[in-house]
Amino acid sequence: MSGEDAPAQQQNAEETKQETKPSEEPKAESKPESPAKAAEAAATSATTEKVPEEDQFTYRSLVLSGYGGYDKVKLQVKKGKPTLKAGEVMVRVKACGLNFADLLARQGLYDRLPSPPVTPGMECSGEIEAVGEEVTDRKVGDKVLVLNRCGMWQDVAVVPATHTFLIPEGMTFEEAAALPVNYITAYMMLFDFGNLRPNQSVLIHSAAGGVGIAATQLCQTVKDVTVFGTASASKHETISQGGVTHCIDYRTRDYVEEVRKISPKGLDIVLDPLGGSDTQKAYNLLKPMGKLITYGAANMLAGQKKNLLAVAKTWYHQFSIHTLSLIQNNKSVCGFHLGYLDGEVEIIQKAMATILELYRQGKIKPRIDSTYHFEQVGDAMRRMQERNNIGKVILITEPMPEEEKKEEPKKEDKKKDDKKKDDKKKDDSKKEEKKDDKKKEEPKKEEKKEEEKKEVKKEEEKEEPKEEK
Amino acid sequence: MSGEDAPAQQQNAEETKQETKPSEEPKAESKPESPAKAAEAAATSATTEKVPEEDQFTYRSLVLSGYGGYDKVKLQVKKGKPTLKAGEVMVRVKACGLNFADLLARQGLYDRLPSPPVTPGMECSGEIEAVGEEVTDRKVGDKVLVLNRCGMWQDVAVVPATHTFLIPEGMTFEEAAALPVNYITAYMMLFDFGNLRPNQSVLIHSAAGGVGIAATQLCQTVKDVTVFGTASASKHETISQGGVTHCIDYRTRDYVEEVRKISPKGLDIVLDPLGGSDTQKAYNLLKPMGKLITYGAANMLAGQKKNLLAVAKTWYHQFSIHTLSLIQNNKSVCGFHLGYLDGEVEIIQKAMATILELYRQGKIKPRIDSTYHFEQVGDAMRRMQERNNIGKVILITEPMPEEEKKEEPKKEDKKKDDKKKDDKKKDDSKKEEKKDDKKKEEPKKEEKKEEEKKEVKKEEEKEEPKEEK
Repeated sequence: MSGEDAPAQQQNAEETKQETKPSEEPKAESKPESPAKAAEAAATSATTEKVPEEDQFTYRSLVLSGYGGYDKVKLQVKKGKPTLKAGEVMVRVKACGLNFADLLARQGLYDRLPSPPVTPGMECSGEIEAVGEEVTDRKVGDKVLVLNRCGMWQDVAVVPATHTFLIPEGMTFEEAAALPVNYITAYMMLFDFGNLRPNQSVLIHSAAGGVGIAATQLCQTVKDVTVFGTASASKHETISQGGVTHCIDYRTRDYVEEVRKISPKGLDIVLDPLGGSDTQKAYNLLKPMGKLITYGAANMLAGQKKNLLAVAKTWYHQFSIHTLSLIQNNKSVCGFHLGYLDGEVEIIQKAMATILELYRQGKIKPRIDSTYHFEQVGDAMRRMQERNNIGKVILITEPMPEEEKKEEPKKEDKKKDDKKKDDKKKDDSKKEEKKDDKKKEEPKKEEKKEEEKKEVKKEEEKEEPKEEK
Repeated sequence: MSGEDAPAQQQNAEETKQETKPSEEPKAESKPESPAKAAEAAATSATTEKVPEEDQFTYRSLVLSGYGGYDKVKLQVKKGKPTLKAGEVMVRVKACGLNFADLLARQGLYDRLPSPPVTPGMECSGEIEAVGEEVTDRKVGDKVLVLNRCGMWQDVAVVPATHTFLIPEGMTFEEAAALPVNYITAYMMLFDFGNLRPNQSVLIHSAAGGVGIAATQLCQTVKDVTVFGTASASKHETISQGGVTHCIDYRTRDYVEEVRKISPKGLDIVLDPLGGSDTQKAYNLLKPMGKLITYGAANMLAGQKKNLLAVAKTWYHQFSIHTLSLIQNNKSVCGFHLGYLDGEVEIIQKAMATILELYRQGKIKPRIDSTYHFEQVGDAMRRMQERNNIGKVILITEPMPEEEKKEEPKKEDKKKDDKKKDDKKKDDSKKEEKKDDKKKEEPKKEEKKEEEKKEVKKEEEKEEPKEEK
């Protein structure tokens, strides 16, 4: 997954234009931010008829302009057809997946994303629009899903052909975009490091998240695996239907106690996306021969912008283990992050082949939580960061219709109700271990207020056009 | 594996007698160390005819009398038939295995062995002589191999029936005693933590040792596994025939460089019995998704008695890993020690069943390096500690015939020649990383001198009896 391609591609684009407000016809219209850019745009527009096709080529791209809040990801129009090197293909993107790493990256907490300005996004799906030299196993029109280090959140992506995988019959673009990161992550953790076998037990944190849903489904492919899943209470019904044996509301319960009640000897595998003090808890929960697989530091994420206290606290509590302790406990500690598996094409291709075969057999199916247009990327990120999603949050490249701009996406509305329910259930009288969780929730409340303000604003906007009509 | 049984058994023995010199008929004869014990023994002897059978019952037992050198393990005669609790069996021991943990234990560096006086030994083979209540799957006369926390180095051992395994047809008692610790260790590391699969690569340190030979054989059961094995040059032919693809003489070569030359990307699995700075090297040698399995701290062992410098150095360099490093490298660090798998009967039984099946299929076969009588336990330990063995060092309970006492075991002589060859090949102009190894070798030279002195003494003894004849 040598993501160097993406930044390179960005440089190919001769000019970039800032879309301050989303436009229906991005290729033609664009509203540059600065007078200089406006002049440029005017000049370009004036010479449109004379320039060759390559230069007329424009596409929309989400660009992280600097580290910070949701507004740091901006929709821009890029000009100039990307050139293809040998072994590369150009993909007309239809849908992109959102991942936790994208949220960390926005705050400057993910070192695999090159410095801004840069287009984030590790996965997408679409159709091949052009193939470079030496590409023999892909052709124009192939429907593919793509895994790359970054640069997937745009209309057009240029990637090595080896980073693309043919989409099986019957799989939607949304499902395809939801597949690579979450399912490869879950697969490698459970079946490579975890060596999951029948009758074992697994703890899946954030069981309603993208990796959580994927891991739960993959656990079902092995006989008699007991899945403990943490999620807020409102999500329990869904994850239980998805295969979680024991749902634990981490907001109102101490998950360590809950697991011990049911499985006093502990667990065979713990998947830990949280980091900080939760990694130690995970380690303690392991049975002899148990495997802890840590794959993130979600505890670092507290609020829209980088929260230095949360970062410092997570670092401070970050787990460090002495080998003699591992020996005396017969335990295993593994770290996984797909973003660091750069260049391991063989590993990825093998995992992906198995995952696509499991899809064909009907054993796994990505759960799409919600889809957002590029114009709504901030809302999409907020949904994920506030953990309101059950399953995957997807961005689609299809420009947002004018009328939709005045409405919230339907799914989003439904889930917001869920969120409100969750908030009501919040229990502030937590034990010591719960303090971390509270820290995460506090900023959420603040953002919720912001969100409410925005909703009011949108309502106003909604009424205005009506008057125009 | 609840090893509490062994010390309990020891308490059952009414009296223990020290055998300062091995005796041909240990049940009848014994030469107590102290006048007090001599008096006791005389008293016991006088009442022999009156006491019931249980009290007449005697057996020989190797007892660790205190931490220190080879002479701290003494052969004693114990009196009184051990009583059986429900679920236990009494085994008439034929052969016992020597393990690295026994050497560490003798120096007080292994916390799973209860405090002296105590009988060491984690494995043995023999015949069942009595079964306790509630034992349904074992009967008198069954040939079994036994795995226990300690207490196996004696003529008679009482253990839970669940710690015994029926010996397959055609397996000798020596092979059976060589099997449990080494093969379960190698099996669990390679197939549970290691998740070994076709086309992978494995580094096996001390490839000529018990675990090394077992691991090499188990690697052959998986298709196209490349085995890198370290051993001194004189052992290369043997381990190469056993399945090691690339033999590395760690005494004259930097094994890290040698591995990198052949496999620049690194390895899938490293088995690390050394600890200290070698664990970091092992970690660095891993490919992405690689697994380091550390299972000892052999580097702590330098010389016959506890070498505080070696212990401190090993501790100081002992590997400690931060989970963020694991994540960014996609690596796994596991610790294994069979001695700490107490009570995990199910795990052990499953592994043992597979191992015995592999033996039946002719896929594995323990390699016996040498066998020693109980009277020669010091020599047996020295052979292992000085790493002169290729395969397993075995103790047999059969008392040493008078004539043999004046001779060295044949195999031992052969291997001593090997050792001398090794010593000749020693290259003192090593790089920085080699210093550890040198430290290990220095005490060896001292001990060699001791050994030579002993040999001279034995030669003298040898001649004396001739004169007697």
